[in-house]
Amino acid sequence: MSPSPITPLSYEQAGVRYDLIDPLKVAAQRAAAATASHLSAHGFSEVEASRGESAYVVDVGPFYLASIVECLGTKTLVADEMQRLTGRSTFAAIAQDTIAMSVNDLITVGATPLVVQAYWAAGGSEWFSDAERAAALVAGWKAACDTCQVAWGGGETPALAGIVEAGRIDLAASCTGLVKPKSRLTLGDKLGPGDNIVLLASSGIHANGLSLARKLAERLPQGYLTEVEPGLNFGDALLAPTTLYSPVTEALWAAGVRVHYAANITGHGWRKLLRHPKALSYRIHTVPPVPPVLRFMQQQAGHDDAEAYGTLNMGAGFALYVHADDAERTVEVAQACGVPAWVAGEVLAGDKQLHIEPLGVRFSGQDLQLR
Amino acid sequence: MSPSPITPLSYEQAGVRYDLIDPLKVAAQRAAAATASHLSAHGFSEVEASRGESAYVVDVGPFYLASIVECLGTKTLVADEMQRLTGRSTFAAIAQDTIAMSVNDLITVGATPLVVQAYWAAGGSEWFSDAERAAALVAGWKAACDTCQVAWGGGETPALAGIVEAGRIDLAASCTGLVKPKSRLTLGDKLGPGDNIVLLASSGIHANGLSLARKLAERLPQGYLTEVEPGLNFGDALLAPTTLYSPVTEALWAAGVRVHYAANITGHGWRKLLRHPKALSYRIHTVPPVPPVLRFMQQQAGHDDAEAYGTLNMGAGFALYVHADDAERTVEVAQACGVPAWVAGEVLAGDKQLHIEPLGVRFSGQDLQLR
Repeated sequence: MSPSPITPLSYEQAGVRYDLIDPLKVAAQRAAAATASHLSAHGFSEVEASRGESAYVVDVGPFYLASIVECLGTKTLVADEMQRLTGRSTFAAIAQDTIAMSVNDLITVGATPLVVQAYWAAGGSEWFSDAERAAALVAGWKAACDTCQVAWGGGETPALAGIVEAGRIDLAASCTGLVKPKSRLTLGDKLGPGDNIVLLASSGIHANGLSLARKLAERLPQGYLTEVEPGLNFGDALLAPTTLYSPVTEALWAAGVRVHYAANITGHGWRKLLRHPKALSYRIHTVPPVPPVLRFMQQQAGHDDAEAYGTLNMGAGFALYVHADDAERTVEVAQACGVPAWVAGEVLAGDKQLHIEPLGVRFSGQDLQLR
Repeated sequence: MSPSPITPLSYEQAGVRYDLIDPLKVAAQRAAAATASHLSAHGFSEVEASRGESAYVVDVGPFYLASIVECLGTKTLVADEMQRLTGRSTFAAIAQDTIAMSVNDLITVGATPLVVQAYWAAGGSEWFSDAERAAALVAGWKAACDTCQVAWGGGETPALAGIVEAGRIDLAASCTGLVKPKSRLTLGDKLGPGDNIVLLASSGIHANGLSLARKLAERLPQGYLTEVEPGLNFGDALLAPTTLYSPVTEALWAAGVRVHYAANITGHGWRKLLRHPKALSYRIHTVPPVPPVLRFMQQQAGHDDAEAYGTLNMGAGFALYVHADDAERTVEVAQACGVPAWVAGEVLAGDKQLHIEPLGVRFSGQDLQLR
């Protein structure tokens, strides 16, 4: 007997066991932090406040160097299944997702992304013999680089039979950028009470929460072909490519808006708004519209608002913390870049917590342990 | 009937089909090259000669920025099997291999590696529950960063069930560095007739040729436990960690040796000595001793010297092209770093070819198509 669609399904039930990964992460973070002193041998130094942030920052003298590597995750499994069902390859969108995972993290520290490297590890040489899919991956990767004005430096296309499953591909991107001038660094030292929170619209699920989406698809009678709204099925809705936010952060700098802090809303959903280590409260008074695919997932998974907003982006893909005087201008600049945006809340003195007032949802600092 | 151990086994028979991967690579390289112009929007420019080299280089004004992402490949499959056979984890060595793949490529352009990011994509959260193996991976990664004096910036530890096979891990590393001062750039503009070729010893197979090694193990009656020399079995010999060459290139700079060009000898073996696009001949008069594991593989695969030296490193893991007056000093500096080295040959005017005189082996420019 298959479970009823309204049986609740938690994120852990969807297959990701953070309790097994986290001890390794903590050990790795400690070992990594101990290597910072090596930079002094080369005349440079770590920007220690970047440890635990989305990108790692080094002071190289005239400017800061930022770097990152990010994995797409399991979104290709949805793309593979939809290609089986419809015959169409969506790997151009998948390429954009992969670059977005990397670029959207890099820009949180105030860096201009300059170079992206491709990591395309296939389950065997055969993966590349689907010429249409391979061409879509290349074209989508190029187009995303064009949007972000980054140079595609090169990359790796290994065939890893025995490690990556046959017919599958493991996609990741590394990104390197510069914070120039150095005053553009946004690690939150200026973040404080009175700042406003501007939320930028997501295009859908982006690339976090796909394990849950796949589990939900398994128990839907029509699977990915189930409509989430008239004319849009679940699979296609999931595969909307992730919004690239670097045009917005570049335009904000050019417009004279000085961002105090930025958070990429990925895994852990809106709990990422609590990312900065400072003890501050965040009050949300305006909640962006929820993309149909995320509303559908919330309903199908039987999640209350706390679980939904604590897991998925729920319509807000990126958060900018700016001086209150800059908030409206931030919205205007984002919208001029084609990204809907809202002055959604404010930063207050007080215990570390996020209060989403319209929903009556609160998260505390304990709800997000990233360091 | 299992094939006799002396039935020749080519690299393509070992499972890597370059004919399927190469069209994608060519399309990707073209698309990537077309993105270079984006750098001008940020006031920077590509160093075009780095396209097709081992790392991508951008001119950021006061110095050059170099970046790369590199995959370990399938060496973990050998480590996994040896752990099954002996109960010991060799993931500390595997970590060094992964960093070596990235750092040894980055330094070919003259860059000082500064930051390494870890990419550890497991087949499921369970991979990380083998605490001894996970600790070895962390410790080995840290130790390799210490040797190379790079900062471990962070990384990704995704659990990719459905993409990476259960119980397996896909390892890669990105590396970012600077060429400082800019005169340290080694893209070969000074490479020319009269230069000497200094070869640096490899520690064994490093991380290229493992598909072939695994196929050979399959047809050996005792598999990885077969002795390659008294007291050393095939599996342990394969798992010798890859030599990290950045201490040598840093020491050479400090000693005043100006490297004209450098080649990391990985896939395609000694054909990589032909890497630079200039029409030059390379005469090798001294061949380093062959590590027992590579001699064993050559014998078991039934390879003549041309196939062996065209596929494996055969004892030379890295090549430095220096002014003849600097050759002996280069050897001394490498040996002071604990890396055996030989003045092995010279650069001559003439058609593009490599002549390994002691072996009577020649490779032409057609034997290496990387661009």
